[in-house]
Amino acid sequence: MSKTIHINVVENILGANDQLAESNEGLLQQSGTLGLNIMASPGAGKTSFIMKTISLLRDQYRIAVIEGDTSAATIDADKVSSLGLPAVQINTGGDCHLDANMVRNGLAKLNLKDLDLVLVENVGNLVCPAAFKLGTHRNILIASVPEGDDKPYKYPAMYSSVDILILNKIDLLPYIPFNMDYFIDGVRILNPNLVTFPVSCLHGTGLEAWNDWVVQELKEYRKG
Amino acid sequence: MSKTIHINVVENILGANDQLAESNEGLLQQSGTLGLNIMASPGAGKTSFIMKTISLLRDQYRIAVIEGDTSAATIDADKVSSLGLPAVQINTGGDCHLDANMVRNGLAKLNLKDLDLVLVENVGNLVCPAAFKLGTHRNILIASVPEGDDKPYKYPAMYSSVDILILNKIDLLPYIPFNMDYFIDGVRILNPNLVTFPVSCLHGTGLEAWNDWVVQELKEYRKG
Repeated sequence: MSKTIHINVVENILGANDQLAESNEGLLQQSGTLGLNIMASPGAGKTSFIMKTISLLRDQYRIAVIEGDTSAATIDADKVSSLGLPAVQINTGGDCHLDANMVRNGLAKLNLKDLDLVLVENVGNLVCPAAFKLGTHRNILIASVPEGDDKPYKYPAMYSSVDILILNKIDLLPYIPFNMDYFIDGVRILNPNLVTFPVSCLHGTGLEAWNDWVVQELKEYRKG
Repeated sequence: MSKTIHINVVENILGANDQLAESNEGLLQQSGTLGLNIMASPGAGKTSFIMKTISLLRDQYRIAVIEGDTSAATIDADKVSSLGLPAVQINTGGDCHLDANMVRNGLAKLNLKDLDLVLVENVGNLVCPAAFKLGTHRNILIASVPEGDDKPYKYPAMYSSVDILILNKIDLLPYIPFNMDYFIDGVRILNPNLVTFPVSCLHGTGLEAWNDWVVQELKEYRKG
């Protein structure tokens, strides 16, 4: 039965993946580099959020980006490179998520000792990326208002597994039926202590609070 | 190497899946039921589109829906049931796509001889659903304006594999930087003859053309 074989192999892959993720975490810790894994639906605004985060932090911190894409398209990596920052493009060859081995290959192309922060942009997908640890220190989910207020209820594994939630595109709230209480209730059931930042990357709204959080995180990480 | 094993098993699964998809297609043909596989990102508007399609066609045609979800949440199936139509919920158990075996189990719960149209709502994901044939007659992709104009370039396998493209949420065009020419150019490179319907399910815009297409398709399918 191919179904049974499939499940066993997935378990083996997840076990091997966890080991590589620990190794990645060790590498990042050795160099004092904070790693953030950024996950979202296609089009929720991962790249816009990364570009805004870079513009907020680049004067104080040394940043690189690892871009995961299912195809060879280098649209996102090119945007980061255009800012003069190191960007590594990972083509997953059609896989719907990054895994720890791909990130290990990406980290090997960066001079980690010269970096304070590595932003990892995962493949646009709310299912599989939640299952694959990468060895980054924090998992961030970017939700967006036009995706709808029912997403926590439909993608519970993703909403349960993350440390930070960015709710992007709040500038579209006037034009879309989005019940904020229903959304937040869904988040709280799954992940009661989830730190949430409502933002609009397009208009630059709400990014100060995110900036304060990540600066604090970088300070604490360096002390630890 | 678990990577190599993974790839072999995936090939076996796809081979087995194709056989089951052919069997599903045969089942649908026997009963003269048209099957449509509806794919999209999370939140692009699959369920809204299905609800609108039902309201357009339900006076003339007998319709059922198969709802694929990664969790046990029955939000979408409940919406369809509330209209008094047969709805089968398939919980993929975390898998990021429907496969032909899941759809076979769904079809087995429907009285196909009493149905003209089965709408299959795939899992919200732009990667894996493109690789798994279900045995439906047409593959439909719902894109949405807030996802951004670069999606054809980033998810070429999905955009290449579908027969129909619905561009939803066109009511948000005034509020979002979306270059329609860039989007359409990306679509045309990958899939030159793709039939495209710009719509707003929220405001009911553009749905007449879609209605005409699906009615024509149902008529031709019955003749064939």
